Amino acid sequence: MTAIKRKKITIVGAGFTGATTALMIAQKELGDVVLVDIPQLENPTKGKALDMLEASPVQGFDSRIRGTADYADTASSDIVIITAGVARKPGMSRDDLVNTNAGIVRAVCEQIKQHSPESIVIILSNPVDAMTYVAYETLGFPKNRVIGQSGVLDTARYCTFIAEELNVSVEDVRGFVLGGHGDDMVPLVRYSSVGGIPVDTLISPERLEEIVQRTRVGGGEIVNLLGNGSAYYAPAAALTQMTEAILKDKKRIIPVIAYLEGEYGYDGLFLGVPTILGGDGIERIFELELTEDEQAALNQSAESVRNVLQIVTR
Amino acid sequence: MTAIKRKKITIVGAGFTGATTALMIAQKELGDVVLVDIPQLENPTKGKALDMLEASPVQGFDSRIRGTADYADTASSDIVIITAGVARKPGMSRDDLVNTNAGIVRAVCEQIKQHSPESIVIILSNPVDAMTYVAYETLGFPKNRVIGQSGVLDTARYCTFIAEELNVSVEDVRGFVLGGHGDDMVPLVRYSSVGGIPVDTLISPERLEEIVQRTRVGGGEIVNLLGNGSAYYAPAAALTQMTEAILKDKKRIIPVIAYLEGEYGYDGLFLGVPTILGGDGIERIFELELTEDEQAALNQSAESVRNVLQIVTR
Amino acid sequence: MTAIKRKKITIVGAGFTGATTALMIAQKELGDVVLVDIPQLENPTKGKALDMLEASPVQGFDSRIRGTADYADTASSDIVIITAGVARKPGMSRDDLVNTNAGIVRAVCEQIKQHSPESIVIILSNPVDAMTYVAYETLGFPKNRVIGQSGVLDTARYCTFIAEELNVSVEDVRGFVLGGHGDDMVPLVRYSSVGGIPVDTLISPERLEEIVQRTRVGGGEIVNLLGNGSAYYAPAAALTQMTEAILKDKKRIIPVIAYLEGEYGYDGLFLGVPTILGGDGIERIFELELTEDEQAALNQSAESVRNVLQIVTR
Amino acid sequence: MTAIKRKKITIVGAGFTGATTALMIAQKELGDVVLVDIPQLENPTKGKALDMLEASPVQGFDSRIRGTADYADTASSDIVIITAGVARKPGMSRDDLVNTNAGIVRAVCEQIKQHSPESIVIILSNPVDAMTYVAYETLGFPKNRVIGQSGVLDTARYCTFIAEELNVSVEDVRGFVLGGHGDDMVPLVRYSSVGGIPVDTLISPERLEEIVQRTRVGGGEIVNLLGNGSAYYAPAAALTQMTEAILKDKKRIIPVIAYLEGEYGYDGLFLGVPTILGGDGIERIFELELTEDEQAALNQSAESVRNVLQIVTR
Repeated sequence: MTAIKRKKITIVGAGFTGATTALMIAQKELGDVVLVDIPQLENPTKGKALDMLEASPVQGFDSRIRGTADYADTASSDIVIITAGVARKPGMSRDDLVNTNAGIVRAVCEQIKQHSPESIVIILSNPVDAMTYVAYETLGFPKNRVIGQSGVLDTARYCTFIAEELNVSVEDVRGFVLGGHGDDMVPLVRYSSVGGIPVDTLISPERLEEIVQRTRVGGGEIVNLLGNGSAYYAPAAALTQMTEAILKDKKRIIPVIAYLEGEYGYDGLFLGVPTILGGDGIERIFELELTEDEQAALNQSAESVRNVLQIVTR
Repeated sequence: MTAIKRKKITIVGAGFTGATTALMIAQKELGDVVLVDIPQLENPTKGKALDMLEASPVQGFDSRIRGTADYADTASSDIVIITAGVARKPGMSRDDLVNTNAGIVRAVCEQIKQHSPESIVIILSNPVDAMTYVAYETLGFPKNRVIGQSGVLDTARYCTFIAEELNVSVEDVRGFVLGGHGDDMVPLVRYSSVGGIPVDTLISPERLEEIVQRTRVGGGEIVNLLGNGSAYYAPAAALTQMTEAILKDKKRIIPVIAYLEGEYGYDGLFLGVPTILGGDGIERIFELELTEDEQAALNQSAESVRNVLQIVTR
Repeated sequence: MTAIKRKKITIVGAGFTGATTALMIAQKELGDVVLVDIPQLENPTKGKALDMLEASPVQGFDSRIRGTADYADTASSDIVIITAGVARKPGMSRDDLVNTNAGIVRAVCEQIKQHSPESIVIILSNPVDAMTYVAYETLGFPKNRVIGQSGVLDTARYCTFIAEELNVSVEDVRGFVLGGHGDDMVPLVRYSSVGGIPVDTLISPERLEEIVQRTRVGGGEIVNLLGNGSAYYAPAAALTQMTEAILKDKKRIIPVIAYLEGEYGYDGLFLGVPTILGGDGIERIFELELTEDEQAALNQSAESVRNVLQIVTR
Repeated sequence: MTAIKRKKITIVGAGFTGATTALMIAQKELGDVVLVDIPQLENPTKGKALDMLEASPVQGFDSRIRGTADYADTASSDIVIITAGVARKPGMSRDDLVNTNAGIVRAVCEQIKQHSPESIVIILSNPVDAMTYVAYETLGFPKNRVIGQSGVLDTARYCTFIAEELNVSVEDVRGFVLGGHGDDMVPLVRYSSVGGIPVDTLISPERLEEIVQRTRVGGGEIVNLLGNGSAYYAPAAALTQMTEAILKDKKRIIPVIAYLEGEYGYDGLFLGVPTILGGDGIERIFELELTEDEQAALNQSAESVRNVLQIVTR
């Protein structure tokens, strides 16, 4: 048996983010894509998949993209990406949101566990730090195979604002963001550079602080502009990058939500930290030396994550 | 003055098709993109543009993507793509639909004429054959610079179905579709091949006829599945391919809706025909020898186009 | 064990073609590349590999490229590409050339058999039809895993000349070439098209005949211009396309030198025919209906292949 | 006149570096490429160009690549890249080498001045710091349009070694190198990072010093391995990146050899410094604060550059 098979990527949730992720993964020919959603949405899911497939002769990619409501179609996936979950509606308490999505993520993970027991799972569902924990618990997979997305997106926003400020290529801006995905994320200005040049030598502290602040509320900025719904292009790009890093065993250094066992002083918590993403999922966690201020900010972020987690687990 | 400037592409209409086109054009770094929509949709338009821009550091493309409701921001575009228009709603007669969209296209073209008088204009708004005519009339541009999209999309669907039938790469399927965009489009089976091998030697006539028929109603298939809305991934891919062909002066052979002056026996009509797309827009129209049946089908298609056109012009 | 590993591609022969192939495969991130040559050339081989690797941060690809003279480094390759062999020198008889290269290919294949028994092997060494046979015999691999390159290159030249003649994009020209790699290859004009339009409706028979003739001696044209050495850019591109088709299981329709068992009336002969290349190597051979002239040309081509083969096997 | 034309790039010198650069530029469809060399090499130059062109249908790029010995064919180029020059031969003094290449660069620049007076010129010929000066003097172009390559290549080597040391993706390593191209280049370890993490927190000072030292002699390492000739893959990648930055107006932050007028304490000298490369060539020079050691190293590097320059100008 010498057969070389395409990789298989399942995306749970065929909303804007899930569908856009499917497109971007197919464009890169990372493998075949299964887009799965609930039975009530089976037809629209099939419709989006077919529409994308019909783009393939023009965009020049070979990827079978299939829509389905049947998890049997997702069997033996190499990667599973979870974008499922509801958005907070008027009158819905935060606890209700958290518990609703935790229920969804649990149900999805039961399916994944059964149909793709060897897969690496990437979670986007919100609140993502807690949902990654829920997934980890339900899946029972080793920690390197359960990964939450937040840092790539937060960093992407931060880098976009820096590039715009300086009118330079986005390819040359580097930065990253520690901690939870939310208003108390911790953009590490100290570690940001533009073509290798520290950003704090190019942008004033006041302006940088504005950019950091804008990054923190970057998700809300899009929500406010759209009026109805939340960001999906940049989140999809983030999920695609993580998927590519794993499937090509690129060993990229990417900030993700990883299970900590002692790193940064935390144990048994999922938190956003810089890692190496490769063929084994999270292959290494980098433990940076933090300043007192940074550690304090990280602690506050971890506290928020824990608070949300308590809603789920109580 | 040696300055090399990025090309500028304006996309009118920030719905799913317009937005997806913006993304695909930016991914290919074809130039800077302005997404323009009506004032009531200014914020969502800005939101989508910003979300896409925030994907750029991750996807690695340099393209300023801007959302706006002000045509002044579109000034001096090299390419303008028109996706604006309403979808047919329950209770709306076809005539109402045609006249409403004709009004929209006229208004848009007045703006283009003023702000980007040297641009090449690509029209997607439906019914596209008639809307391309309306655009041509309003713009007063030479015929090579007014181009309707239909054949790329129809052909893409046809090729997708062939590739699926034979389980081969989409990169190797070639085919094309003549005539109007609609149920009486004319897929030229005779001119279809897979890796150079005529499809009719690989697929039975009955099965091929089914594929042709499925292609004819390919747009409706997606509409039915989605339940709410119509295809946008494959249409966006089609618009992107046409834009790339022009901006890179690739001289690709692409079926588009072109103004005929005698070709195929028509004069003063816009109809889907194979052309060379390059830096001057439509650089050449290929006039194929048709069989009697094909010419009859083309005549019927032309008749449909004329009928729609009469609604607009009477 | 969930580890996702990179594919491994070994290229035997670090001359211009081998090295350029390594670059192109790395650029596409198809896997890690091992470039192997004889011990006397170990250092230059390492030098080329290192130079390429040093291009990777700039070109943005992750691929370990290694030069070596030790086949142990090639162990467990997914694909092995053989470019090794000598060029004909003044005073060297054709028989000497064939036997020298047969010896080289046999020695290489013994190594491959030992170190990468599950690999798919692609042969470029000249005379390629015969050398593919020699490789097949030595390797003892199933026929789907022993593939000679000739048709992609010959077709590429043919398409280049057609594109130039019509001043159209190379992306839209399709054609293919049957039979042996040499002056009696059989370009199938009937099956050639430009954007789906048959070339013989666009180019006069006389001009087409000139293009066919130029294709037949396309290798010699480059040899004459270079003065010293033979083509390597287009051959490397051809090898890369075949490798990509297999490693991504693209199921592309590609003319290659395949082992015939009855197809086209031949049994036990390697000859250039259209195939599907995918994860299993040659997954299908297409048997086209030929005209009498085409079959006669193919017969002549097969005769040439057989004559060369007799030199090796006698 | 709405015509959108392809950009035109001339590459002077069709040796390995020039030819590989032509390939990489064509692969990215940055424009049409003219490869020009001396009349004695006209045929090989044409041969290489044709071989590359014949790769285009397979690699899927539209770029006319032409070989010539006639500068009239280079007329109105947007970018001219100079790779011409001799290598040091046994028995040749350094002064002889410098003066020979200065003569070549002067002759080439006279042609460029006449045929492409609006072009942006990139110089690779060695010794590159001095040759960039010679080009500047001969061309009489504004300083933003005369650019020497060194920093991209040196940085690429440095990043390759860092990525290898840590076994991480080359995409995440950033660093840069100041000063002249030679043994006294100044890799700024302080400004190097891996995924944003300072390298000096990941690699020991001793090991880093070894990597810096290896970078300094990186060109020599390749020369020694090849035995005959010098690096061309990584230099070609560097030239391609600079060309892309300019032609797409990417405003990338790239270390290049720029004409200094006061920056870093130098006036009227070409030296490697970080810049913004965009549609106007060098759009900005970044003046970093250096430590005393770094400034001393830069001074030594500048001194070397001046010494070479004196050979030319005396």
